[in-house]
Amino acid sequence: MPDTVEIGLGRSARRGYHLADIGLVPTRRTRGSAMVSTSWQIDAHAFELPLVAAPSDAVVSPHTAPLIEQLGGLAVLDGEGLWSRYTDAADVLAGLDDETSTLQRVYSEPVQPELLRQRIQELRAAGVRVAIRLSPQHTVELAPHAVAAGVDLLVIQGTVISAEHVMQEHQAGLNLKTFIADLDVPVLVGGVTNYQTALHLMRTGAAGIIVGYGAHAGSSTHSVLGIDVPMATALIDAAAARRDYLDETGGRYVHLVAYGDLATGGDIAKALACGADAVMLGESLARAAEAPGAGMYWDPTASHPRLPRSLVHDVALGDRPSLKEVLVGPTSDPTGERNLFGAVRRVMGKCGYASLKEFQKAELIITGGR
Amino acid sequence: MPDTVEIGLGRSARRGYHLADIGLVPTRRTRGSAMVSTSWQIDAHAFELPLVAAPSDAVVSPHTAPLIEQLGGLAVLDGEGLWSRYTDAADVLAGLDDETSTLQRVYSEPVQPELLRQRIQELRAAGVRVAIRLSPQHTVELAPHAVAAGVDLLVIQGTVISAEHVMQEHQAGLNLKTFIADLDVPVLVGGVTNYQTALHLMRTGAAGIIVGYGAHAGSSTHSVLGIDVPMATALIDAAAARRDYLDETGGRYVHLVAYGDLATGGDIAKALACGADAVMLGESLARAAEAPGAGMYWDPTASHPRLPRSLVHDVALGDRPSLKEVLVGPTSDPTGERNLFGAVRRVMGKCGYASLKEFQKAELIITGGR
Amino acid sequence: MPDTVEIGLGRSARRGYHLADIGLVPTRRTRGSAMVSTSWQIDAHAFELPLVAAPSDAVVSPHTAPLIEQLGGLAVLDGEGLWSRYTDAADVLAGLDDETSTLQRVYSEPVQPELLRQRIQELRAAGVRVAIRLSPQHTVELAPHAVAAGVDLLVIQGTVISAEHVMQEHQAGLNLKTFIADLDVPVLVGGVTNYQTALHLMRTGAAGIIVGYGAHAGSSTHSVLGIDVPMATALIDAAAARRDYLDETGGRYVHLVAYGDLATGGDIAKALACGADAVMLGESLARAAEAPGAGMYWDPTASHPRLPRSLVHDVALGDRPSLKEVLVGPTSDPTGERNLFGAVRRVMGKCGYASLKEFQKAELIITGGR
Amino acid sequence: MPDTVEIGLGRSARRGYHLADIGLVPTRRTRGSAMVSTSWQIDAHAFELPLVAAPSDAVVSPHTAPLIEQLGGLAVLDGEGLWSRYTDAADVLAGLDDETSTLQRVYSEPVQPELLRQRIQELRAAGVRVAIRLSPQHTVELAPHAVAAGVDLLVIQGTVISAEHVMQEHQAGLNLKTFIADLDVPVLVGGVTNYQTALHLMRTGAAGIIVGYGAHAGSSTHSVLGIDVPMATALIDAAAARRDYLDETGGRYVHLVAYGDLATGGDIAKALACGADAVMLGESLARAAEAPGAGMYWDPTASHPRLPRSLVHDVALGDRPSLKEVLVGPTSDPTGERNLFGAVRRVMGKCGYASLKEFQKAELIITGGR
Repeated sequence: MPDTVEIGLGRSARRGYHLADIGLVPTRRTRGSAMVSTSWQIDAHAFELPLVAAPSDAVVSPHTAPLIEQLGGLAVLDGEGLWSRYTDAADVLAGLDDETSTLQRVYSEPVQPELLRQRIQELRAAGVRVAIRLSPQHTVELAPHAVAAGVDLLVIQGTVISAEHVMQEHQAGLNLKTFIADLDVPVLVGGVTNYQTALHLMRTGAAGIIVGYGAHAGSSTHSVLGIDVPMATALIDAAAARRDYLDETGGRYVHLVAYGDLATGGDIAKALACGADAVMLGESLARAAEAPGAGMYWDPTASHPRLPRSLVHDVALGDRPSLKEVLVGPTSDPTGERNLFGAVRRVMGKCGYASLKEFQKAELIITGGR
Repeated sequence: MPDTVEIGLGRSARRGYHLADIGLVPTRRTRGSAMVSTSWQIDAHAFELPLVAAPSDAVVSPHTAPLIEQLGGLAVLDGEGLWSRYTDAADVLAGLDDETSTLQRVYSEPVQPELLRQRIQELRAAGVRVAIRLSPQHTVELAPHAVAAGVDLLVIQGTVISAEHVMQEHQAGLNLKTFIADLDVPVLVGGVTNYQTALHLMRTGAAGIIVGYGAHAGSSTHSVLGIDVPMATALIDAAAARRDYLDETGGRYVHLVAYGDLATGGDIAKALACGADAVMLGESLARAAEAPGAGMYWDPTASHPRLPRSLVHDVALGDRPSLKEVLVGPTSDPTGERNLFGAVRRVMGKCGYASLKEFQKAELIITGGR
Repeated sequence: MPDTVEIGLGRSARRGYHLADIGLVPTRRTRGSAMVSTSWQIDAHAFELPLVAAPSDAVVSPHTAPLIEQLGGLAVLDGEGLWSRYTDAADVLAGLDDETSTLQRVYSEPVQPELLRQRIQELRAAGVRVAIRLSPQHTVELAPHAVAAGVDLLVIQGTVISAEHVMQEHQAGLNLKTFIADLDVPVLVGGVTNYQTALHLMRTGAAGIIVGYGAHAGSSTHSVLGIDVPMATALIDAAAARRDYLDETGGRYVHLVAYGDLATGGDIAKALACGADAVMLGESLARAAEAPGAGMYWDPTASHPRLPRSLVHDVALGDRPSLKEVLVGPTSDPTGERNLFGAVRRVMGKCGYASLKEFQKAELIITGGR
Repeated sequence: MPDTVEIGLGRSARRGYHLADIGLVPTRRTRGSAMVSTSWQIDAHAFELPLVAAPSDAVVSPHTAPLIEQLGGLAVLDGEGLWSRYTDAADVLAGLDDETSTLQRVYSEPVQPELLRQRIQELRAAGVRVAIRLSPQHTVELAPHAVAAGVDLLVIQGTVISAEHVMQEHQAGLNLKTFIADLDVPVLVGGVTNYQTALHLMRTGAAGIIVGYGAHAGSSTHSVLGIDVPMATALIDAAAARRDYLDETGGRYVHLVAYGDLATGGDIAKALACGADAVMLGESLARAAEAPGAGMYWDPTASHPRLPRSLVHDVALGDRPSLKEVLVGPTSDPTGERNLFGAVRRVMGKCGYASLKEFQKAELIITGGR
């Protein structure tokens, strides 16, 4: 029954499935979009959309975070991004081009903890729930500043993360379990790609787990590192870990946030149907007119000083729609890249489900992709 | 034996097959094309070709319907299309371009029930069998007008339909079972994509079921909504529902009309061999010189005001053949897109079958597509 | 063990494999090319190469047949081609272009039995073994002329053929069994695509069976008719029929000639390893400088008056090599399209086999194609 | 459990997996790159990188060998390449173009054993460990010269090699077992593609086995010969042979060197995770500014006088990085083609392994490729 085959003498591997490999199967009972809810709640925070805006400087800035909040989602500012490195981050953004070397240069400027605090205070002043992303390497150093400044939700995120990262002996490692226990704010951690890592991260006390590393049209992690996340399988596996963790804790529910291979409303719907509670979107939002990337998208792996793992790439072909059109429409674009959550709502109805929680049980079919 | 695999821990999915994934296997007994019949009869209506022209304004108009009837097929006029919205529909058609926003604008004009009645009367005057398509949302309102005007066959069709659509409480829903029982004309309903929905729709008393939502070269339903119909599997499943319904009713045969992924004669033949009684064609016919779309094709999903799910696209590369050449040839085009039913007749002979009913048993092989 | 899956409820299909899906596995014992023989013998006729030149007017003419014979292969002239329709066939060939309609026009001229006789006599005068292809429809009428003129080998070939073709009642059908029994010359028949048809054709007394319908880069039979031959599977199935027929006759060996999807030396080698005794090549030879098609290739399905199933297409990109370079090299072309049988000889050695008969047992691996 | 299916009646084949078909799965325990070692030792020779530079004249010359050694790898000079044919090899290299016929011409000049000795002496004088590649056909003649001149490691390499090559009777064959036993220097032999051949070659006493024939972007061996190596399967099979040979000898460990389909750091990592001890790289290094191929790559199969099996092709799009950037970075290139071993080190850490030997046990998943 498990889809495992021998790929060479004495060595087996599972077959993984990408979202592109599967399709949703409508049921014999459909319902109108108006009777469908896409609302999502994590910890004390409720959202109209199951949306986390990715911590990319091309997407989330002190200026776009309130807009994303207003449209129903959660915006995550990169705590180690340009806004924590430059007082005049907007000017730096305006000077970017699509060269990786330019990115590497501007991101080589050190993070200033005071600036990070200041950005959080600005966001609080704007009345939004403040979520900040820190890398596992710098969490120990920077998290206290974020917490002191009043962060609402902390996102500890690297390409691939684990609960037990072995560091050099003279370095202070990050013990996620004790770290999270000591924090007063809920924590999202990731990315993870498999059952074991997901379960171990759940046991650290995280409120949510990020599944995937944010693969997008410009990603090359699969080429550079040989790591490729078949997202449908990764989400279903993480959902199994969530179920097992729920059992072992007698009811602690950990949220799953899908991150990667989410270009269209259909992709998002399939991720939710595989067990995600919400999706983290970067590239899709970078396309919006309001996006600070000015039509380009890049994520934190694009500026790595020695081994970049994604391209700065142009995501705005032709006109740039409003963030509202991208998220909830209406739109005249038939590609599936706009009115993303209008599409989710519609397909939930066609599959007969009224809430995201029910929709996680939708029937799937392997289609071989298109 | 069922092709079901575990795609993640504790979650299984069936493997679905597209028409492109399979091929027909000729048998040891072949027969000449002249000894093959492609005739099809549904209710009291007999046709030389197993052809239903899709309710697209790019294909069926009061002017092309008689031509399609004369060539042996059944033309379905969109009861909510331009001919029911504008007195001067021909002028509106002439003013279209390939912008989705233009489509959205012209289709925002309200449907006029009187105009619908008038179009039906025009068609009756032309001596053709009148088939009208209504959406599930507007069937309750518009069907009485169609029936009063003398429609011969009613087509109730949305992208995906079910027998039990849950609407908002203050809305009058469409109870297909009582609705169809009260009608005097035969009804085609769809689209459906799986066994359960097909069986439930059969139980409403429909004369035929449409399988698929009309995927064509410009479709994006799979991107926008994440729904993808592996047509070979969907047809075979619906044929199983037909068999079970035949048993439970002691002999009521419900017709299956395949709609989608039908670009060539080979595609049509494969759909028939998977159990279809007829095929609904849109894009192929839009290519004809007589088509009202003037070389463009679009279907009702292309004009959705908030979430369009297909492109208006150019289907006429180079010259535009006559509708006769497209349907029954002769042709000099070797792509398989013309003389569609000449090809069907020929491959039925090569597989050794004399009638469509027998051809539904043809041997299939999985080829992996080309 | 048989690779059969349920593709829909209650309906199963086998998985077929194309030559592109498999690879040859070298063994632990290799041998030098000089110790390898590619010789082939069918009936009384021995050949240095397992090569049958396809009955395409773009390849075989009274002028190229002797050249092909001299290089080690068997040339088949199309008995219903231009050389049987026109006294000045060379002029007609010179006037062709790449329009299907032009082909349809020139092939609408009737076949003249006297001209067919004359061509055979010319070939005999040139000292070659004469092989003529006739279509199943015209075999009864034309075969006596071919035999009277001294044909050495008769090829009865349609796209797909069967031992029992049901014709209209007033037509004289072709009973292959009695027809072949009455003939003094060996007969090749085809194409076939499966075990049953192959076995039935073997029982007609044919010396050889053609497997496949000659799919090439310009073929559209799979689009037009929905018939697609996974060649590796078709050959292995036909070899199983050959084995069973050998048993039931106590030793009659029927030759298998692979026809289709043979673009490179590797493709040819894989066909032989799947059980073919020889390959029928068209497109590859049409590339040669001496080919009558002047750089274009077409087969008999390209000129069908109502439903053409392949393109006239340009196969000579850049320079045109000699027929000798195409067949046995040497070459400077690294694409695998030249020195076809030098490549076969080399890979037979790398797999450790000295003769074609042994090579039919070579180990295969499914590679998923490239 | 073994992934074997019937591809036709009575004939089975295994499914092989390419590196592109699989991905690496990170584990629940990660470690920093600084705690990872990529060191490799074969016989008495230790290297910082598991790298063998392929014996292509486009990559290894007396001038680049010291540089490759210095960066941590082993350079193999082609003992039958231009440096053994011409005193002024640098001039000959400068005069090359991308025509196969030019290559065939310059490589038709005979190998001069004295020149081979001289090159080895030059390399020794430069202080590098000297590895020379000879073809199986010329090993008997040339190896004594290489040994006399002081070669450190001998590489006997053809496309596909076996322990028992059957030659023409009047030729002196190469008996690898006695030949290797009589040599004082360690020997690498290959390429092999399967378990049996690998095991037999191990029994000749070779220090290492080369798996694969060096497939690269310009390769056509799969087209020309029909041989295709699904590299993941071939490596895993060879690792099984290594395990069995270790058992039967009570502890002799034979190294596996992967050669082919290695374009990125991810490909290299996957090869190591499939059991390789090191990788042989050609095309990747030909891209470097210092490479003698001046931006072009070719391997010994490209100059075959009668049947070339790969293209001379341009591998330097845009700028040419330093060899250091290609091998160990840093880089601004996000494609995965530079900083190859920085990437390997990083992914080893993400999978939680500290040494190459442990990394051979990394978990794999079938991803279907990208």
